[in-house]
Amino acid sequence: MAIRLGDLAEAVGAELRGEAGVLIKGVGTLQQAGSGQLSFLSNPSYRRYLKTTRASAVILLEADAVECPVPALISTNPYLAYANAAARIFPPKSFQPGIDPTAVVAESAEIDADAWIGPCSVIAAGVSVGAGVFIGPGCIVEEDCEIGAYSRLVARVTLCRDTCLGRRCIIHPGAVLGADGFGLANDRGRWIKVPQVGRVRLGDDVEIGANTTIDRGALEDTVLHDGVKLDNLIQIAHNVEIGKHTAMAGGSAVAGSTKIGSHCTVGGQTGLVGHLTIGDNAHFSAATLVTRSFSQAGYYSGNLPAMENGAWKKLIVRLRHLERMAKDLKSLKKAIKTLTGESLK
Amino acid sequence: MAIRLGDLAEAVGAELRGEAGVLIKGVGTLQQAGSGQLSFLSNPSYRRYLKTTRASAVILLEADAVECPVPALISTNPYLAYANAAARIFPPKSFQPGIDPTAVVAESAEIDADAWIGPCSVIAAGVSVGAGVFIGPGCIVEEDCEIGAYSRLVARVTLCRDTCLGRRCIIHPGAVLGADGFGLANDRGRWIKVPQVGRVRLGDDVEIGANTTIDRGALEDTVLHDGVKLDNLIQIAHNVEIGKHTAMAGGSAVAGSTKIGSHCTVGGQTGLVGHLTIGDNAHFSAATLVTRSFSQAGYYSGNLPAMENGAWKKLIVRLRHLERMAKDLKSLKKAIKTLTGESLK
Amino acid sequence: MAIRLGDLAEAVGAELRGEAGVLIKGVGTLQQAGSGQLSFLSNPSYRRYLKTTRASAVILLEADAVECPVPALISTNPYLAYANAAARIFPPKSFQPGIDPTAVVAESAEIDADAWIGPCSVIAAGVSVGAGVFIGPGCIVEEDCEIGAYSRLVARVTLCRDTCLGRRCIIHPGAVLGADGFGLANDRGRWIKVPQVGRVRLGDDVEIGANTTIDRGALEDTVLHDGVKLDNLIQIAHNVEIGKHTAMAGGSAVAGSTKIGSHCTVGGQTGLVGHLTIGDNAHFSAATLVTRSFSQAGYYSGNLPAMENGAWKKLIVRLRHLERMAKDLKSLKKAIKTLTGESLK
Repeated sequence: MAIRLGDLAEAVGAELRGEAGVLIKGVGTLQQAGSGQLSFLSNPSYRRYLKTTRASAVILLEADAVECPVPALISTNPYLAYANAAARIFPPKSFQPGIDPTAVVAESAEIDADAWIGPCSVIAAGVSVGAGVFIGPGCIVEEDCEIGAYSRLVARVTLCRDTCLGRRCIIHPGAVLGADGFGLANDRGRWIKVPQVGRVRLGDDVEIGANTTIDRGALEDTVLHDGVKLDNLIQIAHNVEIGKHTAMAGGSAVAGSTKIGSHCTVGGQTGLVGHLTIGDNAHFSAATLVTRSFSQAGYYSGNLPAMENGAWKKLIVRLRHLERMAKDLKSLKKAIKTLTGESLK
Repeated sequence: MAIRLGDLAEAVGAELRGEAGVLIKGVGTLQQAGSGQLSFLSNPSYRRYLKTTRASAVILLEADAVECPVPALISTNPYLAYANAAARIFPPKSFQPGIDPTAVVAESAEIDADAWIGPCSVIAAGVSVGAGVFIGPGCIVEEDCEIGAYSRLVARVTLCRDTCLGRRCIIHPGAVLGADGFGLANDRGRWIKVPQVGRVRLGDDVEIGANTTIDRGALEDTVLHDGVKLDNLIQIAHNVEIGKHTAMAGGSAVAGSTKIGSHCTVGGQTGLVGHLTIGDNAHFSAATLVTRSFSQAGYYSGNLPAMENGAWKKLIVRLRHLERMAKDLKSLKKAIKTLTGESLK
Repeated sequence: MAIRLGDLAEAVGAELRGEAGVLIKGVGTLQQAGSGQLSFLSNPSYRRYLKTTRASAVILLEADAVECPVPALISTNPYLAYANAAARIFPPKSFQPGIDPTAVVAESAEIDADAWIGPCSVIAAGVSVGAGVFIGPGCIVEEDCEIGAYSRLVARVTLCRDTCLGRRCIIHPGAVLGADGFGLANDRGRWIKVPQVGRVRLGDDVEIGANTTIDRGALEDTVLHDGVKLDNLIQIAHNVEIGKHTAMAGGSAVAGSTKIGSHCTVGGQTGLVGHLTIGDNAHFSAATLVTRSFSQAGYYSGNLPAMENGAWKKLIVRLRHLERMAKDLKSLKKAIKTLTGESLK
């Protein structure tokens, strides 16, 4: 969709420096963008590409504007301004409401007249689908689910019975919401299934990545509050609660009954064990294992970064002998005390 | 389903203290349960909620009964008794057997008259489906699979050709059983696919979580024995064998040809490298990497727990200098020996 | 498919020792193979099974041939020769081209007359499907995807719009290619979605495992070059580029914009953070976190292997006191210097 640069500036609240009539039809990186394309400079490591960019316009900080060879949109948050501009250049595809003839929709399901149910999707009894909802091909929505207005199940999403989505949620392909939690009681060595009777409930504006799984609660619900964003291949166990606007990267996992606060970020492949309470504004590095509650805002880490294999092998051996080293240290301190008559400070 | 408390007590082998006629229709936590709901006390950290519970009955240990303000079911294993009680209050949904008109079932497939094949499911040639089997919407069952009686494919499950399920298995949405193992031979830098001709075989009462993947064997079969329970997003590689009643938590992974014994537990995000042999009753912490065989029963760990980022950064630097520390220690011991004429003990 | 041993030898470039007329119909391990089955010896730890094998023939190194009690095929790379032989004994199932009546194919999709579109698959507008392509049951191919000749979507694969596959690619069930990358801009605490307008492009001979996810690019494309092999449950973020013939094992993950060279291997559950550049022929151990670029070929590691829980607990305590140990060491060195007048060397 082509938009005049002046209109884009106004739409995203940026200051225009240059010709308002330039037509923007696409986006690109500083290196690759050409005529008709908008770019942005947010990460300083890309500043070196600014001088030679052939983009039709660049969104950037005031401080970077002097070096910009093309029309500029000045913003205090260029990446945010870019996000808003790109959303105008690439609006979500509109769709004709209706029900594809190959969809299987139960009679008792309430489908808003403005919603779309795609081919080979299955909508069970008692489901409620709000206005403007898009249910792509191959989705399965089990009994008594509720899908809030303008939500989008991209394709091949599974919502197990009773799952509730707020408004404007986006669920990517392969995600499974509301499967049974991993609840097992042990009967002299055999595992007995514990019925999982809670639900999955999502607030508004929640986005769930491809092949991510969110289990239903055992007793109470598993809850993701407004604005939570989950990447791909994430596991959320039963009775987890995630606060507003918390974002988690791919491959991370949260075990049962852990509560995470608002505005947290969780790095990729990071895991939280069960029954923890994490406060607001806590941030966890990638590939970290969180084994205790952190109530304070802060930045937490716990991984061993990759190194050359020879150095790593030596390190592992040293770690195995760390106990021995500690004992030697103790003996040395004692020996020094004997020699000098003084304890080490 | 409403059940008299006296009947529940008898059904789960618990001792009733209180009125047998109380009607139980649901379940809830000690904090949230209300009239008509059954609760339980198993984890001691919830004991503080017992005195004020408004549940209609609580399952608990004899020792906790004195503080229980409502009718009690006394059990030596309250969580197990609760699991059995909840299974009676929430029996698996019954279904009408048959084949949905939108299912695609090959002529040569043998579908028991008591089974259900859901909408948009695809059942290929040579498949055998036992009595009471439930195949939910969107499942794909490829050629020559066998599904034992009373097994349940919840929805959107994929069974690749030749996969065999025992009786009463439960497979959650998105699980893929029997995809090709990752077998590659190297031909001067290029990877050549090694045909994977083994199968996946599951015993009875196996449960497989959402989006979990279990690869077919390269030559022999990948085998999960009776009662194995796998959580979500687990990867089981070709030719793995998992012993009876072993349970694995979400995000864990087992590489090719590793054998795990019976009654083991594997924590979330834990990985086992290939070609290991793990004995019975071995237990692995979350996020542990298992690089060697452990034949003994026991508890094994190997992760670095999250800490405040500043402390973690210092630790990483110290680890990089551990070799230097070890050398300093050696020199110190030598110096002390020179000074005192004696070696450190 | 039965093949004469002499023909097999010729087909895989191995030297035959024994009767050319032996008929081979299957494959098996040295321990299990019987009449009509071909085996191979590649991993030396299986050599002990050679003498007693009942296979009809064994592929092995010249050096092992003397101990082989049955006809042998001599090869300098027995595993590769086995892969090629097995591919002849088990050729990919042929299929009748056509479109299953339950598939939903858009009018504007171009489906080669030699391709097969399976039951309950959905092919959107503008899709191009090449000669000999097999699209199994339950696949979803969104707008404007291109699928190169002889590629195979096994079953229930999702290709989001604009995804391009080269020739002879194999995509296993549950894989999702082209879902939106995890691009978010922060607006005073709220996450704003950044439109993801790049594509996913795969070269020729790429294989993607079950439930693996590959996100579309934010601006430019996410690219996997010829011969890349990904195992199951792998996460590839937006704008990642993976060089030719690189192989990644199950559960690994690559964060946004990281470039991996050619002929690399990545162990299971290993993660690479974003914006790295990894050179050719770099190899990463399982469960390693890669936090910086490695331009050199080499072998890199960074995990803490599992140990008995008691030893691990002591180690964790020692690690917490490592800073203290370093300070003690410093004081000891100073004390020794005071005593001896000399610094430690």
